Amino acid sequence: MNWTFTIPPFDTAAAEATAHRLDQLTKPKGSLGRLEELAIRLAGITGNPRCQFHERCVFVLAADHGVAQEVVSLYPQTVTVQMVRNFLAGGAAINVLARHARARVVVADFGTLTPLEGHLGQLVERRFGPGTRNMAIEPAMTRAQAAAAVEAGRELVAAEASRGLDLALVGEMGIGNTTAASAVTAALLELPAGEVTGRGTGLDEAALRHKVEVIQRALVLHRPDPNDALDVLAKVGGFELAGLAGVMIGAAERRIPVLVDGFIAGAAALAAARLAPGLEHCLIAGHRSAEPGHRHILDALGLRPLLDLDLRLGEGTGAALALHLVDAAIAIRDEMATFEDAGVDGPNL
Amino acid sequence: MNWTFTIPPFDTAAAEATAHRLDQLTKPKGSLGRLEELAIRLAGITGNPRCQFHERCVFVLAADHGVAQEVVSLYPQTVTVQMVRNFLAGGAAINVLARHARARVVVADFGTLTPLEGHLGQLVERRFGPGTRNMAIEPAMTRAQAAAAVEAGRELVAAEASRGLDLALVGEMGIGNTTAASAVTAALLELPAGEVTGRGTGLDEAALRHKVEVIQRALVLHRPDPNDALDVLAKVGGFELAGLAGVMIGAAERRIPVLVDGFIAGAAALAAARLAPGLEHCLIAGHRSAEPGHRHILDALGLRPLLDLDLRLGEGTGAALALHLVDAAIAIRDEMATFEDAGVDGPNL
Repeated sequence: MNWTFTIPPFDTAAAEATAHRLDQLTKPKGSLGRLEELAIRLAGITGNPRCQFHERCVFVLAADHGVAQEVVSLYPQTVTVQMVRNFLAGGAAINVLARHARARVVVADFGTLTPLEGHLGQLVERRFGPGTRNMAIEPAMTRAQAAAAVEAGRELVAAEASRGLDLALVGEMGIGNTTAASAVTAALLELPAGEVTGRGTGLDEAALRHKVEVIQRALVLHRPDPNDALDVLAKVGGFELAGLAGVMIGAAERRIPVLVDGFIAGAAALAAARLAPGLEHCLIAGHRSAEPGHRHILDALGLRPLLDLDLRLGEGTGAALALHLVDAAIAIRDEMATFEDAGVDGPNL
Repeated sequence: MNWTFTIPPFDTAAAEATAHRLDQLTKPKGSLGRLEELAIRLAGITGNPRCQFHERCVFVLAADHGVAQEVVSLYPQTVTVQMVRNFLAGGAAINVLARHARARVVVADFGTLTPLEGHLGQLVERRFGPGTRNMAIEPAMTRAQAAAAVEAGRELVAAEASRGLDLALVGEMGIGNTTAASAVTAALLELPAGEVTGRGTGLDEAALRHKVEVIQRALVLHRPDPNDALDVLAKVGGFELAGLAGVMIGAAERRIPVLVDGFIAGAAALAAARLAPGLEHCLIAGHRSAEPGHRHILDALGLRPLLDLDLRLGEGTGAALALHLVDAAIAIRDEMATFEDAGVDGPNL
């Protein structure tokens, strides 16, 4: 398989037009700091100095992980499907935060342990199996499955783009997926598992050591090629990780900015940037996760997260919380008075 | 003058009730990090585990500073009054951000260079003079003026409390007021001026050195008593700083949480906490300012800011941006499903 994705470049002229506009507003130059940087970034990504974000979706991709058999999480695998039902019923944290941020939640099953029934129309079904295989024993999936999951993610964006999608948020659910995300991060960044593995939902010291050993074992067993992101996703990734990479590629292809959640979505972003070079400029990091691997991902992608709130939930919650700052940046750009309009003196020369 | 203010203590039972509720919700315990801490804090401040915040005001206090004659700002003093007009017209950053955060802006003139005319009804007038005196030469104000300005701040809250105020945000405007805030911080924390003085609206290296010298000179000249916050406010403070201290005291007396903006509001918070011991627990730091003195203030008050966005505007903008997180914390507390309701398994024991 050999893809090439065409990612439009950052539009410097649009970014400069926004920077110029911000400098006319009644505030010292640059005094709104990262809010101003964000407005400028959004113009460059979209190619539009007056970009607006009316249609926003949180893509929450769910899948199970064979590696959960190695007991790398505090929670039983059944929780993945139960949480998908909770997403569909509107009771999870991401539902609450997305509602307050005026974003729709698109829930997709990329391969949970058991199919969900009775949710037709609400749930997007793109199942690639009853969870991945146990990477501690065999590759998580085939290369063809990984490629198909990436494609399915791209297609999710294509479907929403036809309804006017202009901002994408990415999140996930899957018991065991911090293990997969740590393995993908270790493989792509060629770092020891111990440096990129954390406590997930709340492991103690001994359980964390065991999780690191499981990841190390899988990496030694399969030797994923750090220069082949699809190989990495197939051998030690997950269906939802591959799907999220596809969502990010699909958005970047259309100049749609992507608000990335924490560690797991970050690992998918790293894979997406390898599959589609040049994609990084479309990514906005919503928050800094408490997981130690996230710092390495952010450094590799050149991203500085907007929020730092010790979140470690996933689901897209950190992205949904950061959406408010996107809205604030756009409001500042559009609604403030200029020095001229307001009759306010500028600085002494 | 000898005041005593009665600040109700933090309500541990209300905080614990909220913590218990959060642990029933469909997420790993504590996985929403600082959002959960915030919900718990708000319960303890208000004494109500179901606290709601419908009536929110940003108190923007404006005043001029005699020390501006020493050329410590890039902007002419006329800008203070011009910006007050901009606040009243709704064109400033704080207007935009407050509107998006569903908060009212209460603009009060505590002593700008010239009175504003033609804004009766919109502008709260509590003028203590045409700006303070130049602290580089004489005390900024008398002790009686400082006390009256604190009282006027308390009265602002009393007036809004009668309309149902349940959350206070504090901000300010005043050319030269980072100089006053640095002097107050240096005096109260007994730190050298150089450690707590920054570039304000954008001074260069030479101008920053000059600003530090001006502050150092005022501190040597007046020797404000670090154990007497009113003495400090009078000698090297500002009318709006004293007024903001009063707003925070008035809020804390009524168990109304205060979202504090950046460095200048922070210096006022430091003074408020000295005037009304026990007030600190009512303060929530909205953001970490780029001004170097802010770190010292936050450490002294035991506060960790919610946002870190390189803001250096003031006006209450950092507090208004953080209000979204208050709303998110309350929404999470009230709108998520519990493990029991959603039929989701808890962690393995």
